[in-house]
Amino acid sequence: MRLRDFGVVPGDLPPGTYNAITDVPGVRVGHTTLIKGEGALVPGQGPLRTGVTAILPHDGNLYREKVAAAVYTLNGFGKATAFEQIRERGVIETPIVLTNTLNVWRAADAVVSYMLHDNPDIGIAAATVGPVVLECNDGFVNDLQGRHVGVVEVWSAIESAASGPVVEGNVGAGTGTVCYQFKGGIGTASRRVLDGEYTVGALVQTNMGLRAELRVLGAPVGKHMLEQYMPQPGAGSVIMVLATDAPLTARQLRRLATRGALGLARTGTTSHDQSGDFLVAFSTARRFPHTPEAHVETTAHLHENTRAIDLLFQAAVESVEEAILNALVAAETLTGRDGNTLHAIPHDELRHWLRHYRVIDG
Amino acid sequence: MRLRDFGVVPGDLPPGTYNAITDVPGVRVGHTTLIKGEGALVPGQGPLRTGVTAILPHDGNLYREKVAAAVYTLNGFGKATAFEQIRERGVIETPIVLTNTLNVWRAADAVVSYMLHDNPDIGIAAATVGPVVLECNDGFVNDLQGRHVGVVEVWSAIESAASGPVVEGNVGAGTGTVCYQFKGGIGTASRRVLDGEYTVGALVQTNMGLRAELRVLGAPVGKHMLEQYMPQPGAGSVIMVLATDAPLTARQLRRLATRGALGLARTGTTSHDQSGDFLVAFSTARRFPHTPEAHVETTAHLHENTRAIDLLFQAAVESVEEAILNALVAAETLTGRDGNTLHAIPHDELRHWLRHYRVIDG
Amino acid sequence: MRLRDFGVVPGDLPPGTYNAITDVPGVRVGHTTLIKGEGALVPGQGPLRTGVTAILPHDGNLYREKVAAAVYTLNGFGKATAFEQIRERGVIETPIVLTNTLNVWRAADAVVSYMLHDNPDIGIAAATVGPVVLECNDGFVNDLQGRHVGVVEVWSAIESAASGPVVEGNVGAGTGTVCYQFKGGIGTASRRVLDGEYTVGALVQTNMGLRAELRVLGAPVGKHMLEQYMPQPGAGSVIMVLATDAPLTARQLRRLATRGALGLARTGTTSHDQSGDFLVAFSTARRFPHTPEAHVETTAHLHENTRAIDLLFQAAVESVEEAILNALVAAETLTGRDGNTLHAIPHDELRHWLRHYRVIDG
Amino acid sequence: MRLRDFGVVPGDLPPGTYNAITDVPGVRVGHTTLIKGEGALVPGQGPLRTGVTAILPHDGNLYREKVAAAVYTLNGFGKATAFEQIRERGVIETPIVLTNTLNVWRAADAVVSYMLHDNPDIGIAAATVGPVVLECNDGFVNDLQGRHVGVVEVWSAIESAASGPVVEGNVGAGTGTVCYQFKGGIGTASRRVLDGEYTVGALVQTNMGLRAELRVLGAPVGKHMLEQYMPQPGAGSVIMVLATDAPLTARQLRRLATRGALGLARTGTTSHDQSGDFLVAFSTARRFPHTPEAHVETTAHLHENTRAIDLLFQAAVESVEEAILNALVAAETLTGRDGNTLHAIPHDELRHWLRHYRVIDG
Repeated sequence: MRLRDFGVVPGDLPPGTYNAITDVPGVRVGHTTLIKGEGALVPGQGPLRTGVTAILPHDGNLYREKVAAAVYTLNGFGKATAFEQIRERGVIETPIVLTNTLNVWRAADAVVSYMLHDNPDIGIAAATVGPVVLECNDGFVNDLQGRHVGVVEVWSAIESAASGPVVEGNVGAGTGTVCYQFKGGIGTASRRVLDGEYTVGALVQTNMGLRAELRVLGAPVGKHMLEQYMPQPGAGSVIMVLATDAPLTARQLRRLATRGALGLARTGTTSHDQSGDFLVAFSTARRFPHTPEAHVETTAHLHENTRAIDLLFQAAVESVEEAILNALVAAETLTGRDGNTLHAIPHDELRHWLRHYRVIDG
Repeated sequence: MRLRDFGVVPGDLPPGTYNAITDVPGVRVGHTTLIKGEGALVPGQGPLRTGVTAILPHDGNLYREKVAAAVYTLNGFGKATAFEQIRERGVIETPIVLTNTLNVWRAADAVVSYMLHDNPDIGIAAATVGPVVLECNDGFVNDLQGRHVGVVEVWSAIESAASGPVVEGNVGAGTGTVCYQFKGGIGTASRRVLDGEYTVGALVQTNMGLRAELRVLGAPVGKHMLEQYMPQPGAGSVIMVLATDAPLTARQLRRLATRGALGLARTGTTSHDQSGDFLVAFSTARRFPHTPEAHVETTAHLHENTRAIDLLFQAAVESVEEAILNALVAAETLTGRDGNTLHAIPHDELRHWLRHYRVIDG
Repeated sequence: MRLRDFGVVPGDLPPGTYNAITDVPGVRVGHTTLIKGEGALVPGQGPLRTGVTAILPHDGNLYREKVAAAVYTLNGFGKATAFEQIRERGVIETPIVLTNTLNVWRAADAVVSYMLHDNPDIGIAAATVGPVVLECNDGFVNDLQGRHVGVVEVWSAIESAASGPVVEGNVGAGTGTVCYQFKGGIGTASRRVLDGEYTVGALVQTNMGLRAELRVLGAPVGKHMLEQYMPQPGAGSVIMVLATDAPLTARQLRRLATRGALGLARTGTTSHDQSGDFLVAFSTARRFPHTPEAHVETTAHLHENTRAIDLLFQAAVESVEEAILNALVAAETLTGRDGNTLHAIPHDELRHWLRHYRVIDG
Repeated sequence: MRLRDFGVVPGDLPPGTYNAITDVPGVRVGHTTLIKGEGALVPGQGPLRTGVTAILPHDGNLYREKVAAAVYTLNGFGKATAFEQIRERGVIETPIVLTNTLNVWRAADAVVSYMLHDNPDIGIAAATVGPVVLECNDGFVNDLQGRHVGVVEVWSAIESAASGPVVEGNVGAGTGTVCYQFKGGIGTASRRVLDGEYTVGALVQTNMGLRAELRVLGAPVGKHMLEQYMPQPGAGSVIMVLATDAPLTARQLRRLATRGALGLARTGTTSHDQSGDFLVAFSTARRFPHTPEAHVETTAHLHENTRAIDLLFQAAVESVEEAILNALVAAETLTGRDGNTLHAIPHDELRHWLRHYRVIDG
C-alpha cells in the first residue's frame, strides 16, 4: 500500500517509474530485516525487530569513484557518522547505511570491512575510509542494547541492493520504527523535473512525530486518532536521504538537503528535542576518482539563478513528504519485546479523514 | 482581519493576550509606513511603498543591557546584518529593524546613529555596535533603488514602538511585500506554554512563496486561486523574528529559531533559490550588561531533556505559521509604481476553500 | 619598506611579480586615504585618519560576471556584510571593500550606488545585490562616530583600483589601524605554486594582537618591545582577503580561507574576544553569469586528493603571514584625534631582534 | 622528557601542578598501549603499534551528570563521532576516547558497552548515548585494518584513568603516530589564569605536519632536519582536547576550541587536505543531570567582555602548543610493521637549533 493507492496525487511534479529513490539511474537499495524471538526483553538475546537498509549511489566501486554529497542537520541528537568528512570533502565513498541507534558503530565497522574487501589498500597505503551510517531508535520493540546488526546483516543489505521497486514499511532499518506514534518504517518517492532531464528521489527511515501533529497532505488527521492504540513512542528521529542525477556541487546539494526538512515539516512534526533529524543528499552525475590522474578536471555543473534549481528544490520537498507518508501507510502492526505493539495507522480511518478533509473525493 | 476571525483556532497551544510578539513582556513593536506618489517609477524619486518595522526586546538601553539571541538561515540569499556577531557573542544590542532590500545599509547606519545618541561612548571608548537589520524586496511596487529609508524613518519606527496590539498587513516593512503572490506584509502571533509560565511570540515580514504552494492550515487553497490577479511577484524572502521570556541560552535560541522554519514550511513554500529566509530569536529573561561588574554571574537557564523545551519548539512552529497567515489575511490590495498592483487574497474565496477543506465549519 | 627588505625570505614558496594580491591576474586594488584635521575629537567633524581599500576580482562587470567565493569567520565580533549570501550562493558580485567599523553600512550603501550605476536594472527587474564590506576599528586616532566614508570615498577607491604594486601601511582602510599595538594597516603578499600554474594572493587590514604576542617569522620580538610607546590599542580585528586563479569551488575556497587563519596565528595573536577576524577568498578562474544562457555549464575544477590543493593551502598560510608582517613594517607613526599616537615598530630594533633570533644573518 | 626540560618556559601563563590536562580538577586520563608482534604486516594479525587514550571529565557517572562541551573542526577529513549531538545539545555524556582511524567504530561500540554497564536503562527507557571517539591513522607501523581495539582495550583505558601526571609520547592512542614526520604521540599541558581561579588543560594526539613546517616555539627547526630518517609519513591528523573548570557555556567552549587551532598553527602545520584536525572542549564547572528535577536551574556562567575570557583563550593557545611539543619530545623511536620505523626527533640536534635560534640560552 502506498499513498497514491488512496487516490491522491501528492505534489505537482511527476514521479519517476517506481516513485522511488531508485528512479535515479544507478541508485540501488537493499534491506536486511531481522524479526526473531518474542516475549520478554533479554538484553543481548532479543527479541529482534530491527534491520539494515543500504543505499548505493552507483554500481561501481564507491571508494574508487566517489559521488558529490552534502549533509544537513535539522536536529542533531543522533549518531550519524561521516558528517565532518562529507562537509569537508564534499563526497561520499561508501554505501549509505541505515540501522538502529545503538548499532550505528557496529554497522559502520561492518561497512569498513566491506570496503576493505574490495579495496585492500585502505589503511595500508595511508588512505582511510569514512562509512556513512544513520539511525533511528527502535528500542520500544527491539533489543536495542543487543546490537544484533553486524557484518552479515550489513553486507547482506549491501549485496542485495537492487534497482527497481523498493519495499517499504516494516523492512530493513524501518522494521521496528514508528511514524507519528503509528507504526512507520521505510518510505520512498521520486520526482522528475524538466521533462525528465533530472530525477530527485528520497528514501526515509521514519521514527518521529507526535500523533497530534500528523498531517497527511495538509489534513490534520492525527488529532482525530489520539485515542487509538496509545501509548506508543513518539518524538523520535527521522533520516532522509536524497539522490539526484542533476549535476549539483556539494554546496548545491546542501541546499537541496535543507529542502528535505521542509518536506518533513509538511507532515506536521516540530522536530523534538530528542530527535536526530538528518539529511544526506548526493548526486550521481559525476564520479570523483579516488586517485585523480590530473589535478584539474572539466565537468558539468548546474547554474543557480535558473528555474532548474527551484524545480529540484520542489522535487526534494515533494519527495520527502511523500516518502514519509508512504512509510506510514505501508507499515503494518508489529509486536515486539515485552509484547510492546506498534499499531499501523488504520487505513479505513485514514481514508475517512482524507475524505473529510477533501484530500480525496467521495 | 486576522486568521482567527475566520473562525479557526490554529494550533494546540493558547495565544497570549494580543496573539502578538508583544505578549512577551517588555517587547515592543513600531512601524513607519511610507506610501507616497503614484505612477511611473522614477528611480530616486518614487513612488514609495515601503517602510520600517522595529522590534525592541525591552524598554531599557539595549546596548547597556543586551539580550541573548541566535540566528538561523534557511536560505541565505538576503542582506541580513550582524549575523556573525550574534553567532559569536550570543547577544543582540540594538533594536531589530526590518525594511526593504536595498535600504538595509542606510537603515543599519540609522540604527547606529540611534545607538550613538543614547551611548555617546560607542566608538570612542573602543566598543562598537552591531545593528540588526533584515529585509524583503518590495521593488514590484516601490522605488527600491531610491532607498528612501533613513534616520527619520528608522528612528520614528523605534520611538513609536509600543507594547499591546500590533498592526499587521500593509504596514512598516510589510507595506510593499507579498505572500504567496498575494499581498502580504507584517504578521504576528504568540503562544503560551506551561500554563503561561513562558510566552513565545513571532513577527514576520512575508515576501515568499508561489501561489500554487500556499497552504492555509493544511488546506491547499493556493492551487485554486492560480487565475486571480496574476502575475504578481513570488518566491521572495521571509523574515521571522521570535521572542520569548523563557531563559534560553544562545544555543537553545538557535534551536528555537530552527523550528520557525518548520512553521514557515507548513504554509507551503519550498524556500526558493533567490530567497533570504532568516530567523532571529531572542530571550528577554536575562540582560547581559555591556560592562559586567564581575566575570561570573549566576543566572537561570532552561534544561533540555524536559517537556518545557519541546513546548517552546511547538510554540515557535505555531507562532510562525499563524503570523504568516495573519500577514496574508490582514494585507490589503495595493497599487504602486508603474501601476503595479498587489492583490489581497479574496477573503470570501479563502473562506470558501477553508470550508471546502473543512478547516472551518459550514 | 617590506619584510623582505630586512633580508629574509619568508616561507618556502616563491612570490609573484609584485608579491601582492594583484599577482593574481586581473585582480586590482585601490585606496582612498583620509587624513584631515588635528587635535581634539569633535564627533562628526574629525580629525580623520581613515579610508577605504577596494579589491576588484576582475575588470569586467562584477555583477554580470560573478566569481566563486567563500568566507570564514575565526572570531565573529565584527560587522562584515554579505556573508550569508556568499555562503548560500558561493559567489561575490561586487568589489570587496574595507573601511572602518562604523562606516561599514555607509560604505555598503555606496557600493550599492556604484553597482546601480553600472547595472540600472538592479532592484527593478527583481534581482538585488549584496555588497561585501569589512572593517577594523580605527577609533583611537579617527573620528569613528563621524562616519566620513561615503559615495565619493568608496567610488574613488574602486575607480582607482589598479593592478601592479600595492601601497601598504597607512593607506586606505589601514590608515588608522594597528598591528600588535604598533601602527599597522594594509599589507599584501603572494605565492606561486606548481611552477606558476596558479597564484594565491593575500591582502590584509590589520588591527589585531597584543604586543607580547607578536612573532615575526617565529621570533618573539614583541615581548622585547613592551616598554615602547605604550599604551596603544590592541586585541582588535583583522580582515584577510585571499585571491587565486586556481579553479576552486566555493567549498574549496572555504578550505583555503580557513588556512588564512593559520597564517595569522603564526604572527602570534590569540584572536581576542572583541575581534572580528574574517576571511574572504575568491577564485578568478571562472565567471558565473548573472543570467545564465543554460542551466548547465561545463567548467574546470581542481581535484582534491592531489598535491595541488596542499600547495594552495600552504600558499594561503604563507601569503597571509607575510602580508601581516608587510603591513607592520610598512606602517609609519601616525598621530590622530586628541593627540593619540600610533607608533610604527622601530625598524632598527626589529632588525636587532631578528638578528638575535637568527631570522636574519649578521 | 618534556619541552620544559630543555630549559624553556613556553608562553606567558603559569602551568598547573602537573602541566597536564589533569590539572583541571576531576579530569582523569588513562591509556591502553598495544605493542605486539614484529615483521611483515599480516592484515588482521599484526604487528600492533596502537592503543587507546581515554579522558574522563569527572569521576561521577558521566551519563547521569553530563558536562558542557563544544567541538570545532579545523579540517574535517577524519572519523570523529558524536559531533552532531554535541553541537545540538552542548554536552558530552561519555569519556572522550582516542584511538586509530579504522578502530573508531569498534571503540565507540565499546564505549557504548561501558555506558550500558553503568546505565542499564539506556536504550530501554528510550534514551540513548553518544560516544565521543576521535582518531589518527597509525597505519605506517600498525595493522590498521586489523582493528585490534575492542571492549577490553577501551575499558582498560577508561578504568585505569587517573588524575596526576599523564604519560606522554608512544602511549595509548599515540603509540604509533607521528608529529612533523618524527615520532609523535600523546602530549599534554595546562595553564592557570586569574591567579589560579581557573585552569585550562590540553591533551593532544599528534599525527600531523610536514618536517619542513615544524616550528618549536617559533624556531624553524624542521627545515634543518629534512635529511634525517626520511621518509616518514606526514600531513596527517591531530586531535586536541581542551578541559577547563571555568564556567563556560557550550557557545563559549566553541570559542575556546577555536583557539586550540591557533596553538596548533604556531607549531607550523598548514592543516593538510587529508587531515582530520578536530577539537573537543569541555567544562567541568557544572554537571547537567540526565533527568532534571525541574526545567529551570540557576547556575554560574562566565561573562564575555571581560579579561577572563581572553585569558582563557590565551591559555587554550598556549596549552595546545606546548602539548604538541611535549608529544614531540616525549616520543621515542619505534619500529612497526614491515620494519617501518618512526624516528624520534634527536634531542641533541633539537637542543642545538633551539640554542641557535635563541629559544634557549647557551
